[in-house]
Amino acid sequence: MMRGRGVVNRIGAWLAALLLGVLASGLAGAAAQAEDGYDLWLRHAPLDPARAEAAREVLGPVELRGDGSGTAGTARGEIERGLAGMLGADRGNRSITLALTQDLTEGERWLAAELAGAPPGSFVIAADPNAGTIVAARDDTGLLYGAFALLRHVAGDRPLPEVARTYRPGMPLRLLNHWDNPDGHVERGYAGRSIFDWWHLPERLDPRMIDYARANASIGINGAVVNNVNARAFMLEPRYIAKLKRLADAWRPYGIRVYLSARFSAPRDIGGLETADPLDPAVRAWWHAKADEIYAAIPDFGGLLVKANSEGQPGPQDYGRTHADGANMLAEALGTRGTVIWRAFVYSAEDETDRAKQAYEEFVPLDGRFADNVIVQVKNGPIDFQPREPFHPMFGAMPNTKLMLETQITKEYLGFASHLAFLAPMWTEVLDADTGRGGTVAEVVAPAGMAGVANTGSDRNWSGSHFDQANWYAFGRLAWDPSLSSEDIAREWAALTFSREEAFLAAVVPMMLSSRETVARYMTPMGLAHLMDTGHHYGPGPWVCDLPRPEWNPCYYHRADAGGIGFDRTATGSNALEQYAPGVAAAWADPAEIDERYLLWFHHLPWDYPAQSGRPLWDELVARYDRGVAEADAMAQTWSELSPYVDPQRHRAVAESLAIQRREARWWRDASLAYWQSLNGLDLPPGTRAPEHDLDYYRSLVFPEAPGR
Amino acid sequence: MMRGRGVVNRIGAWLAALLLGVLASGLAGAAAQAEDGYDLWLRHAPLDPARAEAAREVLGPVELRGDGSGTAGTARGEIERGLAGMLGADRGNRSITLALTQDLTEGERWLAAELAGAPPGSFVIAADPNAGTIVAARDDTGLLYGAFALLRHVAGDRPLPEVARTYRPGMPLRLLNHWDNPDGHVERGYAGRSIFDWWHLPERLDPRMIDYARANASIGINGAVVNNVNARAFMLEPRYIAKLKRLADAWRPYGIRVYLSARFSAPRDIGGLETADPLDPAVRAWWHAKADEIYAAIPDFGGLLVKANSEGQPGPQDYGRTHADGANMLAEALGTRGTVIWRAFVYSAEDETDRAKQAYEEFVPLDGRFADNVIVQVKNGPIDFQPREPFHPMFGAMPNTKLMLETQITKEYLGFASHLAFLAPMWTEVLDADTGRGGTVAEVVAPAGMAGVANTGSDRNWSGSHFDQANWYAFGRLAWDPSLSSEDIAREWAALTFSREEAFLAAVVPMMLSSRETVARYMTPMGLAHLMDTGHHYGPGPWVCDLPRPEWNPCYYHRADAGGIGFDRTATGSNALEQYAPGVAAAWADPAEIDERYLLWFHHLPWDYPAQSGRPLWDELVARYDRGVAEADAMAQTWSELSPYVDPQRHRAVAESLAIQRREARWWRDASLAYWQSLNGLDLPPGTRAPEHDLDYYRSLVFPEAPGR
Repeated sequence: MMRGRGVVNRIGAWLAALLLGVLASGLAGAAAQAEDGYDLWLRHAPLDPARAEAAREVLGPVELRGDGSGTAGTARGEIERGLAGMLGADRGNRSITLALTQDLTEGERWLAAELAGAPPGSFVIAADPNAGTIVAARDDTGLLYGAFALLRHVAGDRPLPEVARTYRPGMPLRLLNHWDNPDGHVERGYAGRSIFDWWHLPERLDPRMIDYARANASIGINGAVVNNVNARAFMLEPRYIAKLKRLADAWRPYGIRVYLSARFSAPRDIGGLETADPLDPAVRAWWHAKADEIYAAIPDFGGLLVKANSEGQPGPQDYGRTHADGANMLAEALGTRGTVIWRAFVYSAEDETDRAKQAYEEFVPLDGRFADNVIVQVKNGPIDFQPREPFHPMFGAMPNTKLMLETQITKEYLGFASHLAFLAPMWTEVLDADTGRGGTVAEVVAPAGMAGVANTGSDRNWSGSHFDQANWYAFGRLAWDPSLSSEDIAREWAALTFSREEAFLAAVVPMMLSSRETVARYMTPMGLAHLMDTGHHYGPGPWVCDLPRPEWNPCYYHRADAGGIGFDRTATGSNALEQYAPGVAAAWADPAEIDERYLLWFHHLPWDYPAQSGRPLWDELVARYDRGVAEADAMAQTWSELSPYVDPQRHRAVAESLAIQRREARWWRDASLAYWQSLNGLDLPPGTRAPEHDLDYYRSLVFPEAPGR
Repeated sequence: MMRGRGVVNRIGAWLAALLLGVLASGLAGAAAQAEDGYDLWLRHAPLDPARAEAAREVLGPVELRGDGSGTAGTARGEIERGLAGMLGADRGNRSITLALTQDLTEGERWLAAELAGAPPGSFVIAADPNAGTIVAARDDTGLLYGAFALLRHVAGDRPLPEVARTYRPGMPLRLLNHWDNPDGHVERGYAGRSIFDWWHLPERLDPRMIDYARANASIGINGAVVNNVNARAFMLEPRYIAKLKRLADAWRPYGIRVYLSARFSAPRDIGGLETADPLDPAVRAWWHAKADEIYAAIPDFGGLLVKANSEGQPGPQDYGRTHADGANMLAEALGTRGTVIWRAFVYSAEDETDRAKQAYEEFVPLDGRFADNVIVQVKNGPIDFQPREPFHPMFGAMPNTKLMLETQITKEYLGFASHLAFLAPMWTEVLDADTGRGGTVAEVVAPAGMAGVANTGSDRNWSGSHFDQANWYAFGRLAWDPSLSSEDIAREWAALTFSREEAFLAAVVPMMLSSRETVARYMTPMGLAHLMDTGHHYGPGPWVCDLPRPEWNPCYYHRADAGGIGFDRTATGSNALEQYAPGVAAAWADPAEIDERYLLWFHHLPWDYPAQSGRPLWDELVARYDRGVAEADAMAQTWSELSPYVDPQRHRAVAESLAIQRREARWWRDASLAYWQSLNGLDLPPGTRAPEHDLDYYRSLVFPEAPGR
């Protein structure tokens, strides 16, 4: 016990020193800094005094068994830091013990049993009101996750006894994919520049890299692919390996492994070889040597992510080889040391097949031919991160291949960081989907993992807007536990980030939960998709029909004309439906029975087709646009009433974003209706507001400065 | 008096509330945030207790005469905020009075006399130990500057009586030039992305825009050109005028006027006209209407900056007109409302003349032909922001034209934000230079102003490194008072930014003062110039000789071969010397008499030419490279000893940058020597370290990810 107390005293002194520093700089700069969002969900704001008093009784000194180095030491430090913020330095004497199972006493041995067979990172928390709290794990990372779980529980103001249970990650790989280029540009990034300062590495390590690792570890993320899938080969060169090593060393105590996107043609681009043919012995030897070089610097390097033969990227098909040939060659080079993650996001310039069908057609025949350390990474839907897509038909269709779910945290197609859209409902919709082939998507990806295209950037709030932090948070929480509900995640995040007040949560959580549906309504209602203006993917561009590749055109997706609208993917059309299990396909085959949120994804229907409401399709469509606009207004109204619960700086920032969203929801609705009317010649239903401008106006808008290109 | 006390009480309550907020967020995040550099020189850290005690006695409540709105209110708020940080909330009762001259009492009327005829922004401070302190000015902005001057004085720990005097700006325009593109990229920016969030304006105003205005106002900067001189015409469109208006409204209370870089071809690009000929009536009408449109939104819009017929930009010469024709046409459109700033940075693809001579040749014949509200903006030297250049020969050569000095705060040619180089000595070298035509450069530009190409970006420390903040600071201070010494500025900045301890200042100030010379020594000693690798301008590239335009090649500038090195700009060569006044030219004409820091700028000399030291030129050159490297080492050593005075986060950040600089100083020296040796075949002087690698190695280095392109 003395040791723990000693720690507390030292921390006490540290806090006193810190306090002086805070006062010194805070008085001058606090108005600007204090609530700029940098602390994310790790603010650890003081608990309500009565709750804090009770918590202090049972959450006393932190005792770490073992030598306290590395990750376990990080775990202890995080608990100290978090509890100091929430409870202050003076706390009771019932200890919080962090212990690996090997260090448990005889009387605690039952905790080890709880963890028998549990995957890496699992932990158990026991909370005895008298004996104190124990966090036990079989590995140091489990202790770290346990520390953050305990903090989250306290920060969420939940009854302490409820924290006591066993926690197991739902999948082994929980990865952020950064589409960050080495020059600092972030493809589809809406939060400033890249957070990775390659230019100054390895000498200069931005302190932000530590805060990044903390944030990830706190929600269970255990790896980061640090560069864009449209990769530059030079990032495999020695000078970059030195930079990567500095990052890996900084992140190791937080359980974050470094992964790299690899350009398949690297042996040719930087290796001096004539070819990158995966069956060429010199190519194989080059990758072997490259892997050895990386692992000599970074023993726990995670592996390589590859976008091959997709959107102009090189790949094995350039040499008449298959995706499996390419992936397996790299897998052999990594050996047991790491993982090859091979993206299934492919569609061909020459292929006339419905784009929604192409990945399935290319990959499913390869089932069972990928090496053990290859994972095929599949986007949530068959097109490309639209506001709504049905789940990807590959899930469940490759029983002998590890499949990983790729989600997009950054909102490429959902209004960038300007529009509020909480994405947990989108992801749970996919995770919970029954593939009809023996399990849900969550069950299919459980042996592999989940990737999220990051929304981080140099903006002080990390994500471009305060509410976009919730999507990073939700991604991590769902990757750890795909059974969590969107509501629980929203509530947890909002309490940690803004306020624990019930009145606040009762208003903000429903707003978050409906927000993605709102965006889908004013952008792409009833299963429409990919109507964003070409290139930047921001505002509406349903009229774009003349780009050289058919699938670059919004017209390709909506197929609207005087007669009707929608993409026939039934047997009378592209028959993409047949890629799904029969039960699933049946549920979507009949336009009278289908969940109408998927209607026009699968069906081409006349404008007067009777919707399930009984209204003609056209009227129903207009009603949904209008509902989206009204909901955007309602969000702004709801938020305006929440100012008592949020600091002025963040409250104003969100309010200003919601003002943009209100304006742009109208823009989406008005431009879309003006365009549909130009095709169908129909009047708007009685009582409906006419578009503010004519179609020519909407078509004339250009945004050369749009971010994220 | 009651009113002032009331303010103090309200501020006291505000501080108490703030304190809670600081504690709440600070305990969790302070270690990362408290000293991240965001507060710049406005930290206002608490004074030493004894000094604070004394200051509290005489700096009591702040009393503002007048209605307290706008800029004057800002002035009061800033004093309150700054003194609260340095002295705390409890202070004595001797007041600080802010008063316009019209509100002075009979007894104070002598202060108004002090300001008779003083330019806008002037102020006077009177400090009576009994009656209190008065800041008087003829305009609100003067009160704001006075507030910041008082704070700076207190923060610099200087005796209060010394603050009492009259302060007049040395020139009317003190402008930042932002080379920021609307998409967020900053040309020659090394501090992240643009601080201007055009995408979300006008609805969303980043709070950083207020902190930016505060920082500028605190050093007397009174305008900002918010976009790159390589301008996009669409920034003159209505949607951008709305965005500009929001910025202008936010900055107005800080005395910052908005300026825009204008693309000369805008009438054609966005105006639907066939031409941009400045003598075409339709073109003139278009600019008139555009100016009216801007002024309707922003009544105090500053004006337009134009880069014309330079590096591919359109201009009046495209229509056979002169720079004066172009500038005067825009000047007429603005009328008395604003200023046209026309850049003299021109050189032609076709012109065979020494590039150093071209601006003079194009502009000097136009002297007297520019309208009254036109200012010609001239770079400090005749080439392009090199580590050292002689002053530009246009200064003094256009007595009937307003000339403005353009400096580059961002370190395009001095190691980006990686190398420490304090630039005040470079700028004072130019400002103090006697043109030989009736005044110094400072005197020549006094009727116009001074521009600095900003080094701001989205990095939390604003400038890419902590020490680069000093260059922003020095620019502002020198533009306000060009007679300030570099030493005074360095001392002031270091005390405000890091520590007031004499032991710290005694070490860091000399290090800052010599730092630019150090960089010049290891990059371009003895008057060499423009040897940076092409395009990015970062590392050494003296071997680049084969680019299509001669003046793009470092070889063009060094002219080295087996026989010798240097650019003959005497009568036997390009005779650029003749553009200077005879006395100036005479001082530089003789290589035996010239300040050797300009030697190879003006002279081509054999490698064995006896330098003023008596050593052969080659030996002298090597010695200067070596001295530069040794000085870079010494900076790192000096800084390592200053850790007791600086918070760990900023100390480490600077130390890590200095580690880069040490490595790269060697790179510069080694690569340069290897190249010179490849030409002259000479051995290194005895005892000299050989380059670490061979020339091929240095030539092989490429940096596709270099920032700022």
